[in-house]
This record gives sequence, C-alpha cells and structure tokens, in this order.
Amino acid sequence: MTDKPILLVEDNPDDVELTRIAFAESKIANPLVVVSDGAEALDFLFARGPHADRKDQPLPSIVLLDLNLPKVDGREVLQAIRADERTRNLPVVVLTTSAEPFDVEASYALGVNSYIQKPVDFERFVWAVKQVGLYWLVLNQPTER
Amino acid sequence: MTDKPILLVEDNPDDVELTRIAFAESKIANPLVVVSDGAEALDFLFARGPHADRKDQPLPSIVLLDLNLPKVDGREVLQAIRADERTRNLPVVVLTTSAEPFDVEASYALGVNSYIQKPVDFERFVWAVKQVGLYWLVLNQPTER
Repeated sequence: MTDKPILLVEDNPDDVELTRIAFAESKIANPLVVVSDGAEALDFLFARGPHADRKDQPLPSIVLLDLNLPKVDGREVLQAIRADERTRNLPVVVLTTSAEPFDVEASYALGVNSYIQKPVDFERFVWAVKQVGLYWLVLNQPTER
Repeated sequence: MTDKPILLVEDNPDDVELTRIAFAESKIANPLVVVSDGAEALDFLFARGPHADRKDQPLPSIVLLDLNLPKVDGREVLQAIRADERTRNLPVVVLTTSAEPFDVEASYALGVNSYIQKPVDFERFVWAVKQVGLYWLVLNQPTER
C-alpha cells in the first residue's frame, strides 16, 4: 500500500460521507481527495488550473468515478484518462447508481477497470466501498507511475 | 452472481488446487474451468477445436490468467481477448508470480482489468483468491454478454 491519494469524483455529499466512513473503518490511510465534477477531476489528474501545483505529485492509486457528474460527464472523464499517455494505465472504477446495460457496456468499451453499482442500502454501500478499497489498494498491483 | 464459469488459465497444479480450495471455501458456486495453456484458453473462449461444442454457451464471468504459460503466452491470450469483438469487454485478472514492473505495465497496456501478484505463502494465496472471487463475482457488474 502506498500513500498515493484516492481520487473520488462524486457530486452527492451523502455518498462522499459514506465513502469517508468506509475508508476510515478499513484503516486505509491514503488521503481521500474529493472533487465534485468531471472538470475538476481532469484538472487534478493533469495538474491544471486550481491543481497546477500538483505537477510533481504522484497520480492517485485509484479513481472512483461517478458517471452522472456536473460540467464534464464521467464517461468523458474516463475517455480523457484513457486517451492520455500519463493516465492511460490508471485504475478507474465506476461507482454509480445506474445498472443500465448501456452504461455498463459503454464504460467497459471506454476501458474502465471495474464497474460497481452503488448499493442503495447504507450498510451495503459502506461494505462495498470497503471491498473496493481492500481490492485496489491492498491486493491489486498498480503501475509504477 | 451468475452461474457462468470462471476460466482459470494456469499450468501449475498446486496453484490450481489452492484456487479450488479458495472458491470452495468462499461458497462460490460458479463452475471452475481449468485450462493449462494459452492455446486451450483461446479455444475455450472462442469455441474452437476441443471446445467447439461451446458455441452457444455463455462466456466466463471472469478470466484468471497466468502470464507464463505453455504454447501461447498469457500476454498473447490477453491481446487476443481484447482484439476480438466478442471478448473485448470480458474481465481479465492477471494472477502471476511476477511483480516485474515490465510485466505490470505491459499487462495494463494490453487492457487487463487488474493485476495480482500471487502471494508465496499458502494462506495468503487462498485469501487473495477469495478476495478476487468476491470482488469480481459478487461486487463487480459484468457486461451482459
């Protein structure tokens, strides 16, 4: 496990709070960076605009990406991540309320690593986020970049 | 959870046995199909040769892929999976002894969903396979195909 940040791209404050609780309970020490729209997610990843000071900072260990987001949609964020040499191999997990086959297919076609439907139930949501954290931060081997 | 098979591409009988134990202990009911080289993995996925009778059968829910394999290498298997319309969006997890940055980078560049280094310790190995099963069969939303 590294101390690289986890980037959560989520505009629903309740889901942000539940995600914080899940990571705290999992004793995952990586800092959680929350951005609430797709445009800021890309600014963070590419060290632009308000995040220009991140130029020499490491990329996140994982991006947790909602699909329906203000400004720039989650699908466009995913597309931009896969289109850029610097972020091409970054693990991205879609975390969304939608289980529409169209959204699932489109996300895989755009190169998402994994697609998780947010459980509606509070406890199941926290459980799911814990599993996501455990899997991607402890078990999965990320790229060096 | 569906009853689609799990495809394990593994030539080490000890690792096959440990994987069976892990899935049995996790109460994962999906049938485990084991092939011991990359050529048979592709025959199974594309319903060719000895697996021609699989023509109308569903694809696996997940492919657990070793990298160093007889006949056709794991990297070539991954490349063939991503190159074919039918299997392009199939979840593939590399499960290998190698943690060489070159192997990790190459696997992500070829479109693997996740890369797991096999733990050397017996109990850690079983734990890791259980987590992999839980994550990809219970939590992750696969494509419909």
